[in-house]
Amino acid sequence: MKLHNYFRSSASYRVRIALALKELPYEYIAVHLVKGEQRAPAHAAISPDRLVPVLEVDGHFLPQSMAIIEYLDERHPAPALLPTDAMARAQVRALAQLIACEVHPVTNLRVLKYLTTELRHDEAEKNAWYHHWCRQGLEAFERQLELLARQRERDGLAASRHCFGDAPTLADCCLVPQIYNARRFEVPLDGLPRAMAAVQACEALPAFQKAHPSQCPDAPDAAGPAP
Amino acid sequence: MKLHNYFRSSASYRVRIALALKELPYEYIAVHLVKGEQRAPAHAAISPDRLVPVLEVDGHFLPQSMAIIEYLDERHPAPALLPTDAMARAQVRALAQLIACEVHPVTNLRVLKYLTTELRHDEAEKNAWYHHWCRQGLEAFERQLELLARQRERDGLAASRHCFGDAPTLADCCLVPQIYNARRFEVPLDGLPRAMAAVQACEALPAFQKAHPSQCPDAPDAAGPAP
Repeated sequence: MKLHNYFRSSASYRVRIALALKELPYEYIAVHLVKGEQRAPAHAAISPDRLVPVLEVDGHFLPQSMAIIEYLDERHPAPALLPTDAMARAQVRALAQLIACEVHPVTNLRVLKYLTTELRHDEAEKNAWYHHWCRQGLEAFERQLELLARQRERDGLAASRHCFGDAPTLADCCLVPQIYNARRFEVPLDGLPRAMAAVQACEALPAFQKAHPSQCPDAPDAAGPAP
Repeated sequence: MKLHNYFRSSASYRVRIALALKELPYEYIAVHLVKGEQRAPAHAAISPDRLVPVLEVDGHFLPQSMAIIEYLDERHPAPALLPTDAMARAQVRALAQLIACEVHPVTNLRVLKYLTTELRHDEAEKNAWYHHWCRQGLEAFERQLELLARQRERDGLAASRHCFGDAPTLADCCLVPQIYNARRFEVPLDGLPRAMAAVQACEALPAFQKAHPSQCPDAPDAAGPAP
């Protein structure tokens, strides 16, 4: 397998976490988003949406991080990134989509670029936009975790260590990169105790450490220039 | 089952299509987004993200349209909204996510509202924003359909009638509401032959007709005031 991705893309980061949790080897192909390499012929030929990540597997080029992770989970079931019960699976997917469909798309690089170029907003307005949607989404995520926690209590289950239960799921694969991004944009992360506890539990695991942007071949050295 | 939704919400519309395709009965609970009913206590209590749709089933309140549709597909497998082969499932999910993670989140009501209120853009700039992201996403969707069509040719398969194969899938559940929205915003739909053929094939089916916003209990009469 080959993963076409960018160290700082949070959608790429989600897939790297899934691959690391499943201990699947892959070739790392860097696509530099800030330099616009996603629109260059080499990447455009395999990526109709000109985005990363793309998973290259068995002669197919698969876009969209959530589709990729579900594929990996179906083809390589251990460790599972979704529970077995249909409602529990749905709850995990809903958590993941709270990030992947509500926060990330509105705050990604190309949207921020449109705000500053086409709509001529300054850095302060761009950052206010980022903070607004990121914070709103994370607060919704926290409330969803609370709702699930109350349900676990009613069902006589112990509190979750990760987003849903005691092992990382698709939801954690989405939450951790979003928090990484939130920190870069200096979004306040107070008042999110359950989400931040889940992030801390993940950050202690080697798979999450291995998938971290700073560990990617295309990440600049600490001593090198900013990308 | 109860579906908390709004006639014009395209995420709600996706779920109504899935329910209609599977011929599942449900109670329709209207949440008027333009009047802000999603933030009122009754809905906020069951919807941590203050969004629609929410599926109420077996004492659970399930948010996020894509999670809901996957749940329905797992619990009520016929007719299937995803293929059986893992790569084919992934391709369908990727198509769906091209709409659900790239187009819809950037163009939904609350984002447009932020543009006109917080950022004080006028109608023309708001519409340019809508057209830009909608058109960019639909063009990527069309290219993805082309890539899949070439693959089918190589595999000796007949051309797809719907987005993926000859029956509607999760991808069609997402595409049709997005096109409905695009038409409302008068986005040009030329140069999208495969996507528009799939939409036409869907629009001929009773399930898609039944799920249409105009058929919802909360849709205004043709003679009534605009919502």
